[in-house]
Amino acid sequence: MTDTPSPLRIDNDVLHILDQTRLPFAEKELRIDTAAQAAHAIASMQVRGAPLIGAIGAFGLALALREAADDAALDAARVALAATRPTAVNLAWALDRVARAVRPLAPSVRADAAWHEALAICDEDRAANRAIGEHTLALIRALPASGRIDLMTHCNAGWLATTGWGTALSGIYLAQQAGLDIHIWVSETRPRNQGLLTAWELARAGVPHTVIADNAAGQLMREGRVDAVVIGADRIAANGDTANKVGSYLKALAAHAHALPFWVAAPWSTIDLSCADGDAIPIEERSGDEVRVVRGAEGGVTVLDAGRAVANPAFDVTPVALLSAIVTERGSIDCAAGQTPKQFAA
Amino acid sequence: MTDTPSPLRIDNDVLHILDQTRLPFAEKELRIDTAAQAAHAIASMQVRGAPLIGAIGAFGLALALREAADDAALDAARVALAATRPTAVNLAWALDRVARAVRPLAPSVRADAAWHEALAICDEDRAANRAIGEHTLALIRALPASGRIDLMTHCNAGWLATTGWGTALSGIYLAQQAGLDIHIWVSETRPRNQGLLTAWELARAGVPHTVIADNAAGQLMREGRVDAVVIGADRIAANGDTANKVGSYLKALAAHAHALPFWVAAPWSTIDLSCADGDAIPIEERSGDEVRVVRGAEGGVTVLDAGRAVANPAFDVTPVALLSAIVTERGSIDCAAGQTPKQFAA
Repeated sequence: MTDTPSPLRIDNDVLHILDQTRLPFAEKELRIDTAAQAAHAIASMQVRGAPLIGAIGAFGLALALREAADDAALDAARVALAATRPTAVNLAWALDRVARAVRPLAPSVRADAAWHEALAICDEDRAANRAIGEHTLALIRALPASGRIDLMTHCNAGWLATTGWGTALSGIYLAQQAGLDIHIWVSETRPRNQGLLTAWELARAGVPHTVIADNAAGQLMREGRVDAVVIGADRIAANGDTANKVGSYLKALAAHAHALPFWVAAPWSTIDLSCADGDAIPIEERSGDEVRVVRGAEGGVTVLDAGRAVANPAFDVTPVALLSAIVTERGSIDCAAGQTPKQFAA
Repeated sequence: MTDTPSPLRIDNDVLHILDQTRLPFAEKELRIDTAAQAAHAIASMQVRGAPLIGAIGAFGLALALREAADDAALDAARVALAATRPTAVNLAWALDRVARAVRPLAPSVRADAAWHEALAICDEDRAANRAIGEHTLALIRALPASGRIDLMTHCNAGWLATTGWGTALSGIYLAQQAGLDIHIWVSETRPRNQGLLTAWELARAGVPHTVIADNAAGQLMREGRVDAVVIGADRIAANGDTANKVGSYLKALAAHAHALPFWVAAPWSTIDLSCADGDAIPIEERSGDEVRVVRGAEGGVTVLDAGRAVANPAFDVTPVALLSAIVTERGSIDCAAGQTPKQFAA
């Protein structure tokens, strides 16, 4: 199997990231030299996707430790980086993992140890995502579809959202490499249009796909033009309730209404057993300006006046009752049969 | 009660329309002198909204008859105007009504008679919409909400979509005039952003409202921040299945999941008893360019390459099982109790 690209690159111990706010219109790399730059990259969504912001957070903590590495500095950097985005648990998980690994060490070696831990997180992420893909491929092969298989996804849970392979798209890439006749419905994912990142990834890999407005998902399912839905996740509660990019819940409701499989593909680190259910997951409210920038008259872009009230929850929670399976590197949790992550972990 | 404005104006037997493709960024009136201009105004969505395109279609037929008024010309103009947009039944209904009214007349008086019939359609539309508003207001007053009442709407079913008052927004305007404490969630309605027309209307009338991405509807309902949903309709089948702007179905699924009232507000002319159910309603597929125009990097607008595959169904069908009521000028059809338009009509 051919590896996918990665949205980050390490060259002589220097971190470079692909600036995803410029995609799909321009491919521009940014050099990240400080913890503050890492925090800005996460908060401004130059890097996004739960697994990727975990990895970049880990590198950011290593960079912070190059500046100051005593216990107080370690704690302050961890807290500052964790605050950049609240919903995805992978960020807090990766920061805790690095902090735990370096705390027993002398301050003078903490930065190097943290850097190596961040690299290990990347290696494990790619391996996990590849395994998620294999488990997803098994689900795709088991679909009753005859002829072309039409999968729908939301937002971007591809290699751009991870350190390689992706989560929701990993199985799609493996299905393509296995020669399956697949086609992907890509919802544009307002307000940030991450669906265009997915379309860019799929086009680059030669996977047939069609872009739709988010609003069209229900009608396509009603017309029998969708065989299954596969999305990523930002945090999964112990009972299986899943926080993912806003709009996921609406697709899950529609898939459920049409008895279509709805799969959440995510590394085990996305599961937060300390959250009993979705009500305990914090939902990030992002700037209303993301919604205010809209297509204007005759193709021009216009920003609604700043006084216009806008609400912009970045995520929503899909209750586990609407999920068919949560696909992790450890295997698929059979939500349709009532299995929960907590039971699967036991 | 204060009348709302109207998106059309008749001055010395000349039709002027507000160009809605320029709203909310510019208020520009267009003069419509020919049937071809009327057809273009409908197809390009300079006028949109099921009741309004019915009215403009009627004026268009009158304008066609000024050029040629024999039976063949009448039929040809009716067919050409009806083909501009296939989903909304009001257009076909208005054209049929005008054609039936003038066919028994001598060709020399057909144009004037058609013009008067078009004016009558407008008068009746405004009266019907005002009555729809009264029936909707009764439903709003009966909500169990305490304190502020939060209603959600989709697309634009306000006075811009009709010849006055609107359908879904009529009850909202009456609620405001009655002094109720209301707030409206306005979904932007990609790909054409008609939600911005709703926001513009509501701002002009001083009705508190908040714009959201379409994707956010489910999460807001889950958080208990919505008391009811009210939308318009483009065609309602005999059993109550309702075609409306794409994305309506997803909101109906979410409202149903949270046991929230979901009301369809539409004049009786929107009901097509010749369609047994939603499967018989044709769904317009519009140009993919509507989806291809997206926000680009750093606020610029960018058109995805024309080769990018895009699907763009303009409407979807919400099954009657998800509706609480269909509110017409004749009263509310109690869908929650199993009542259908066909039964109500009998």
